[in-house]
Amino acid sequence: MKRGDWLIEEQTPSYQTRWRVKDVLHVEQTPYQLLRLVEMEDFGRALVLDDAVQTTVGDEHIYHEMIAHVPLFTHPNPERVLIIGGGDGGTAREVCRHESVTKVDMVEIDRAVIEACKKYLPETACGMDHPKVNLVVGDGLKWVADHTDEYDVIIVDSSDPVGPATGLFNRAFYENVYRALKAEGLFVAQVLSPFFHQDLIRDVYGVVSTIFPITMPYLTVVPTYPSGLHCFMLGSKKHSPLREGIGKPSWPTRWYTPAIHRAAFELPPMVAELVEPAGVQTGQ
Amino acid sequence: MKRGDWLIEEQTPSYQTRWRVKDVLHVEQTPYQLLRLVEMEDFGRALVLDDAVQTTVGDEHIYHEMIAHVPLFTHPNPERVLIIGGGDGGTAREVCRHESVTKVDMVEIDRAVIEACKKYLPETACGMDHPKVNLVVGDGLKWVADHTDEYDVIIVDSSDPVGPATGLFNRAFYENVYRALKAEGLFVAQVLSPFFHQDLIRDVYGVVSTIFPITMPYLTVVPTYPSGLHCFMLGSKKHSPLREGIGKPSWPTRWYTPAIHRAAFELPPMVAELVEPAGVQTGQ
Repeated sequence: MKRGDWLIEEQTPSYQTRWRVKDVLHVEQTPYQLLRLVEMEDFGRALVLDDAVQTTVGDEHIYHEMIAHVPLFTHPNPERVLIIGGGDGGTAREVCRHESVTKVDMVEIDRAVIEACKKYLPETACGMDHPKVNLVVGDGLKWVADHTDEYDVIIVDSSDPVGPATGLFNRAFYENVYRALKAEGLFVAQVLSPFFHQDLIRDVYGVVSTIFPITMPYLTVVPTYPSGLHCFMLGSKKHSPLREGIGKPSWPTRWYTPAIHRAAFELPPMVAELVEPAGVQTGQ
Repeated sequence: MKRGDWLIEEQTPSYQTRWRVKDVLHVEQTPYQLLRLVEMEDFGRALVLDDAVQTTVGDEHIYHEMIAHVPLFTHPNPERVLIIGGGDGGTAREVCRHESVTKVDMVEIDRAVIEACKKYLPETACGMDHPKVNLVVGDGLKWVADHTDEYDVIIVDSSDPVGPATGLFNRAFYENVYRALKAEGLFVAQVLSPFFHQDLIRDVYGVVSTIFPITMPYLTVVPTYPSGLHCFMLGSKKHSPLREGIGKPSWPTRWYTPAIHRAAFELPPMVAELVEPAGVQTGQ
């Protein structure tokens, strides 16, 4: 790939998004995936793994604010946080803004992703340099299995369920997440698009809702992800994301607000039906 | 264009969406635009005007439910409705579901669009055959200028501000819309994507908010539109879309619910700032 080429993301064999590449910053076949850092004309510098755009400077704030602040404000006093994946650092950056947070373990499997992001995506990678962050290069699956009753919030900021992230979408993993959480703990995982990955969302909901008493999907827009609509699954032992008294950021945000937090859980029927007949627990 | 070709929509010169065409149903250069009806692999049959996808069977329900039900439930008793554009018929279909509606004038400038949609998009075009609908092939700009104090709701379901729709985005038009509305009337217009058309949204808000006492943008997802995030501008003489006592559909919907209605007006800061410093009138 060279300057002026099109980066092609195939959402399906017959539906593509294409970005013209202004500059190719880094290309590397890691032990886990094809890692590319490119600069696009419209969305700026971007992390691309195995032909799927993961993060762009132009819209990363939406994904990272929504994956971090929704669970962290749902928990009344999050201190210990685990991030699985998240090698661009953007989730860690947002998590560390929460004053109550004392320590963040971040377990990313691919060292090359971390190093490339530190070099080319300082806007997000700065999160990994925060003094609260304990950065571990390792297997998130194993890390979760090895910890019990330790975390207030776990954030699964993985790539899609192909390649190294495959194990992050099955029952054994979510059972381990449950065990790794404290009695008031909760987790969030990204579960792709309600337009292109309906079976995945239905399956993950089916599994999580048999493990966690509160299981609620929520939605946000991410322009550079397939269909523009992105889904997160929240599983919680005690606290509803729609409880009274949710806090609010003491710092400027570009996407997240307490009202956006609540609105994100309002599911249109075509999404709500993915999580029936078990029924959506709206917490209301 | 032939079967197997890619339909290319250039959002910018360096950002494209491409759909593989399963079948080409109709191609015609009308007096106003290049009209194409195609069948796509993933989203089904689609109306394409001048290389921009307008409607697909796969996601049209979102756009049409959100452009129709938000204003019609905002008005406590909408009887007379005007649709400008909307040649695929989907907006008329949704408007006619409202029992209070007695007559819908629908003014579409391009007869060829109507005829092609009747032939190839019966799912939406059925709306134009409803007995409440008075279908007019004509100039919406002129129609609005020629009517005073007549409508409860006006819906501007236009293509983008290039080609025949250019005049639907300026001050003279919105002043005429105000005059054509009754004392409790309101209108909605589609104003594109907050990611790619920020100046347009800012400009339309600036104009509409000097004419209408209540001016509020709202958002929805439309996967086949640029960025997936789509904005509508609502201008109202009296009723807030967030007033108490909003009705709800007595028919099944796939996207719209009263909760989605309210959530659509929750603007993330990066969208809210487009309509500052005048400030967003949240009605709360």
